[in-house]
Amino acid sequence: MCQACHGMDGLSKVPEAPSIAGQTESYLAAQLQAFRAGTRKNETMNVVTSTLSDADVANLAAYFSAIEIKVVKVPGE
Amino acid sequence: MCQACHGMDGLSKVPEAPSIAGQTESYLAAQLQAFRAGTRKNETMNVVTSTLSDADVANLAAYFSAIEIKVVKVPGE
Repeated sequence: MCQACHGMDGLSKVPEAPSIAGQTESYLAAQLQAFRAGTRKNETMNVVTSTLSDADVANLAAYFSAIEIKVVKVPGE
Repeated sequence: MCQACHGMDGLSKVPEAPSIAGQTESYLAAQLQAFRAGTRKNETMNVVTSTLSDADVANLAAYFSAIEIKVVKVPGE
């Protein structure tokens, strides 16, 4: 269900969703856990994470963290 | 002050901080505002955003959103 907003490649497809490709596994897992617990608030993410198991969280964090990204251009450089 | 954790290029330098390069300007501004207001909770970010003006928020969102990133490799592809 993640890909509609975050893309299968982890790059954001809608302005309100961040790119998650290549974020650290620990960061992604922590955010999923926070959304699931409701301590980080976002209507969509609070709903979609509500049914995730701990294994789901671990698998999603592993998948998206394994995508490699690089910077193409920094403004002014 | 952002670069110690998020890099001048917007790529994370520490595991607990996300890469912010190429995130949408609206997403970055919304997160900075949420950290500043305390509605998104993170000890470091709540402190470092506390003194940001609205113009600072806008400028930071503009800078980091203007960095172009691309996916180098998706696992299994």
